[in-house]
Parts: sequence; C-alpha cells; structure tokens
Amino acid sequence: MTKRGTLPDKIDHLEPKVRHGLVVVITGNGKGKTTSALGMALRACGHGLRVCIIQFMKGDLYAGEWDGIKRMQCPIELHATGKGFCGIMGNPYPFSEHRDNAQDAVDLAREKIDSGSYEMVILDEINNALKLKLVDLEQVLDLVRRKGALQHLILTGRDAHPEIIELADTVSEVREIKHAYRKDIEPQPGVDY
Amino acid sequence: MTKRGTLPDKIDHLEPKVRHGLVVVITGNGKGKTTSALGMALRACGHGLRVCIIQFMKGDLYAGEWDGIKRMQCPIELHATGKGFCGIMGNPYPFSEHRDNAQDAVDLAREKIDSGSYEMVILDEINNALKLKLVDLEQVLDLVRRKGALQHLILTGRDAHPEIIELADTVSEVREIKHAYRKDIEPQPGVDY
Repeated sequence: MTKRGTLPDKIDHLEPKVRHGLVVVITGNGKGKTTSALGMALRACGHGLRVCIIQFMKGDLYAGEWDGIKRMQCPIELHATGKGFCGIMGNPYPFSEHRDNAQDAVDLAREKIDSGSYEMVILDEINNALKLKLVDLEQVLDLVRRKGALQHLILTGRDAHPEIIELADTVSEVREIKHAYRKDIEPQPGVDY
Repeated sequence: MTKRGTLPDKIDHLEPKVRHGLVVVITGNGKGKTTSALGMALRACGHGLRVCIIQFMKGDLYAGEWDGIKRMQCPIELHATGKGFCGIMGNPYPFSEHRDNAQDAVDLAREKIDSGSYEMVILDEINNALKLKLVDLEQVLDLVRRKGALQHLILTGRDAHPEIIELADTVSEVREIKHAYRKDIEPQPGVDY
C-alpha cells in the first residue's frame, strides 16, 4: 500500500477491436451530470486522450473543478464561458447577454471540434442552453454532426432535446430521488460546486 | 486565452453558512455513476479536500481513472480492491473470493472513514456489492453512521438499498435511455473505462 493507494498486481487491459468516437448525453434533473462529464475527462486523461471542456452556463460563481483541472498533469483545457444560469433568481444579466455568450461558446466549440486537437470535447450544460434558447437546435445538431469519427462528444444538462438524444450513442437521465437542498442544506464545496 | 483554457476575470465565491458532510448515493442502471463520483473527487481536489476512493468491484480490468488520478497533484488516494463484477460472464473468481475481497474493502473503508484524514470518502460500486451479498446491510449502514459530521460519503452502484437511500442527503438515479453497447459498440477507453 502506498500513499496514493493500492492497485492489483495483475491487470488485464480491454481494447476494443474497433474504436468509435461516441456521442454521450447526460441529462435529467438530478445531481451528477457535470460531475459525470468531469469523471470522463479524468478517465480520458488516464488513457492519454486530450480533452476540451466548454462550460456554457458556468462562469459567474467559482467551481471547484476549475482548480481541480489545473492540478491535473494532463492535456485538458477548460473554458468557463457562461454568466451563470439564465433566468434564475439573483442572476443579474439580461437574456441578450446570456445569448451572446452562448453564441460565442458555440463558435468556440466548433473551432475546438474542428481543430482535431481533442479526442474528447465536453459541452457542459449545452442542453440547458438549448432549452433556454441561448443556442439553436440547428447549431447543436451541427456540432454533433461535424465531430470526428474517433472524437467523443459529451453533452450535459437537463432537458436534452429529443433530436440530440436521437443522434447520441449513449444517453443517461439522472433523476433526482432526493437532494440536500430540499432540507435547506446549502450547496457544499466539493460535492455541489 | 491560455493553453489550459479561459476563466472569467471576476468570480464570486459561494460559501455555505453551515458546513455539512453529505451522504450522496448515485444509483441506477445507466452510464455515469462511477464517473460522477470521480468528478466529485476532482471538484473536491479543487477545494483542497482530501479524498479516498475504494472501488469494491474493480481490480481485474484496467480502468483509465487509475492513471488519471495518478496525474492529479492532489491528496487523492485510490484502492481498487475488487476482482471484477461477481457473477458476470467471464469472471473466473468464485463467490467466496469476491466476498472475502469485499469484506476486506469494508474493513479498509471503516479504517479510512475513522482516520479523520479524508474530507471525502467514495465507496464505488458498494451498492452492487450489497445487492450481491458480498457485504451486509448492517455493515454499510455502520459505515454511513460512523462518518464524520463534516465528511462527505459517496456511495455508487446500481440497486441501492432503500435503507441506505433513507439515510442519504442526496440521491440520484442514473437511468439508461440508450447505451452504445446495445448497438454492439464495445466499451471505449476514456468514456466507458
């Protein structure tokens, strides 16, 4: 046992006969969508894949993943382009500003997908951005269609559009069974942000 | 814009008035449970929390998160104590060996929880281990009850027991809407392992 843990002595390695770049959608109203995408980024880094994360809604409030990612010795890039959750209480920015931001994020996503420099691109909360009309369905479909054959594209956020689900290979719906905030427990660092 | 991405110039920091150590359960049959726990580990590291992950079912097949975590400059410890998924086709170990392993993992979990050295302890796939009778309900309830007041305990895996759900603060069920393997796409590195 070492300071960093224990791993088995003998390990078999899976290797798919055919490599696929997957479209993965993580949607639903429960806790665990962004964190699942972050976990895929961590896993991908273990395999030496290059990852780009674009956060469509985050950018006004500190999120622990920003420093977590800085501490990873991996080719992982993160852009927090948002201005917080459009329309929720306390968010001071008008719709037009949220929309302009999200449109810039779409341009950035297109550039990153087309660059061929990333084996995994994560578009965090893009499903919400579409639902809120900050981006258009045709724009998101275009991003999905232009991804490389061996490139993984991960789209998170509640209310995923049926046409995006239709195009995806793997789709999970994270359902809230219960959540601490309903007991008036405020968001806790490390778990919730 | 840097090589590592872009973050906003002005960031507000949330800080809960009261700190809580949460019990979080991520269950269900869909993709995204272990990755969500890994994402919480990454987020927790960003906040400077110390994390211990014990994987109850993994240990026979290479998982990308092992190297991903090695590449994190964070106090994060990972133990892959399992021998693969008990009872699934191709797994060569008898039930008694899986059970002995899982019992060792419970002892390790108790030791790590009691040590006070970790603000977050992740028991990956412990829900399955309970369902498969590799560990007992009373053992898992004991782990939940003995956690520190400010310690987060994350329990993943399908078929979470109702009594564990009852004790938890936040519970998500990850439902499979679709999965690439149903199109005969083999598990892909970075996404699936």
